[in-house]
Amino acid sequence: MQVFIEPIGRLINEFSKLPGVGKKSAQRYAYKIIGMTESEAQEFAAAILNVKKKVKYCKICGNFTEEEVCDICKERDGKIICVVKEPKDVIALEKLREFKGVYHVLHGVINPMEGIGPNDIRLRELLARVGEGGVEEVILATNPDVEGDATALYIAKILKPLGVKVTRLAHGIPIGSEIEYTDDVTLSRAFIERKEV
Amino acid sequence: MQVFIEPIGRLINEFSKLPGVGKKSAQRYAYKIIGMTESEAQEFAAAILNVKKKVKYCKICGNFTEEEVCDICKERDGKIICVVKEPKDVIALEKLREFKGVYHVLHGVINPMEGIGPNDIRLRELLARVGEGGVEEVILATNPDVEGDATALYIAKILKPLGVKVTRLAHGIPIGSEIEYTDDVTLSRAFIERKEV
Repeated sequence: MQVFIEPIGRLINEFSKLPGVGKKSAQRYAYKIIGMTESEAQEFAAAILNVKKKVKYCKICGNFTEEEVCDICKERDGKIICVVKEPKDVIALEKLREFKGVYHVLHGVINPMEGIGPNDIRLRELLARVGEGGVEEVILATNPDVEGDATALYIAKILKPLGVKVTRLAHGIPIGSEIEYTDDVTLSRAFIERKEV
Repeated sequence: MQVFIEPIGRLINEFSKLPGVGKKSAQRYAYKIIGMTESEAQEFAAAILNVKKKVKYCKICGNFTEEEVCDICKERDGKIICVVKEPKDVIALEKLREFKGVYHVLHGVINPMEGIGPNDIRLRELLARVGEGGVEEVILATNPDVEGDATALYIAKILKPLGVKVTRLAHGIPIGSEIEYTDDVTLSRAFIERKEV
């Protein structure tokens, strides 16, 4: 006999699809749903369907939006564009409340190993935005890994001829950490990118 | 401005209700849902609604079932009843494939601090089952904590006059662990319950 009755097994299987959720966690989540009231479970299911129905991508920057164009693109000055890999990076940067420009979400980075070339990410759209004029600076905020660095380099190379300032977020030792415990790659990067004080 | 658009914020909020899920995990789960196809998300939502619609409690033992009476109660010999706190304990024990008797799920344990008395758990139902006759042994498999132990003791006290054998799962040092790293409570329990070899 199987251990779980079918509806429970099926729900555990769905929860297992979430990132970082193993069999044990998926079980606990399923038990939680079983313990919910009818209306609580309906709310949960509705929130899932609702997000798929309502969340679209801004046709200018590629960020999450409920409309054609996102609030950031609508309300802010477009002189500075911050380029990120994914919509969740926008959320991380917006939490700072420091950057007042607009974004451009690439929806990926160049990754030859996985067959993702410059045409597979929203690069043409970025070129078009910069080409329209009025953009003074493009900040490259892709992740500091091989693909993120390569993508930033590639973008810098094709944007510079357009006469726009291209910058990249600084890399180095995280604030509050200790040199002793900083990994080698970060530490050597911090050496290379050292600044005069 | 708020960081998340409403549908995403709402879904993150729902995921945050799951046990052990913090803000960060809830965000990652929500992104995963957004990245799913329409039909994948529908499958997910349907599994949640389905589990609420189909999963009931067995009217004999209180375990999860899709019917009136669960498969275990239907198919197995009722001479030995194993008493557990929750349906998930049945699943843990069934995985062993060792116990061939039936279960009784209390749906809680006696906990005066939270106002849960003997009448708030499925104790009357257990007494009725034993009272019907034919039961030879009741194994108490509540958790080895204060409430679980107290509940087991209470059940033993009211069952013994009925002439049924009452046993409790053994407690002691877990197999494969080391004495040095065994916690004090477990170790002293292992001393008290030591057996002649």
